[in-house]
Amino acid sequence: MTTNALPLLEPESAAPCCPPLSERPLTAEEAERTAVMFKALGDPVRLRLFSLVASHEGGEACVCDISDVGVSQPTVSHHLKKLREAGLLSSERRGTWVYYKVEPSVLAALGRLLTRAATA
Amino acid sequence: MTTNALPLLEPESAAPCCPPLSERPLTAEEAERTAVMFKALGDPVRLRLFSLVASHEGGEACVCDISDVGVSQPTVSHHLKKLREAGLLSSERRGTWVYYKVEPSVLAALGRLLTRAATA
Repeated sequence: MTTNALPLLEPESAAPCCPPLSERPLTAEEAERTAVMFKALGDPVRLRLFSLVASHEGGEACVCDISDVGVSQPTVSHHLKKLREAGLLSSERRGTWVYYKVEPSVLAALGRLLTRAATA
Repeated sequence: MTTNALPLLEPESAAPCCPPLSERPLTAEEAERTAVMFKALGDPVRLRLFSLVASHEGGEACVCDISDVGVSQPTVSHHLKKLREAGLLSSERRGTWVYYKVEPSVLAALGRLLTRAATA
């Protein structure tokens, strides 16, 4: 039997996961996956850098755009890499610089997780 | 001159703070305050416990309601206390047990911070 009923790709399949926190408890595996992202935002310098990228023109910035957070450029690069590894930022090299961009679907999923929990 | 135009109380004045991340960068002080909450959610066991409280009947639970996360009751109590210290849960003693409840305004503020950032 042949069929071309391939599974549809969910547009937010890249997003972390999970039902609103008020709906049901997270499984251990879901909690592992999601905690990584909250942990990445759980450092004041990293959170500030993340907000600098998110509020920068076009929602993207390179280390060359960020200078006033009181840490060195290598430290800025280190933290941006951590945010990328957590799935919160994507990166692209253009010439000399690596540009970082917020991952809207991932952020939106985290936001829904919290907001719905508060109103349900 | 007399006036009774008192400032209106914002219903969410207890919430952590901050404009959507896409609006403007967080100040160092705002980032310090907000990172504490993300950090509290950045541990898999704590995040799972938090979801257990949030999804429990009435949005509240005591350590006596939580038994299947693979850690001891004292460890559960320790993590619930950390979530309370971060402002994500409130607590109330009733008889033998301390009951923990989600702080909806705090959660909603965190959620907005992320969700609006993703769509703006």
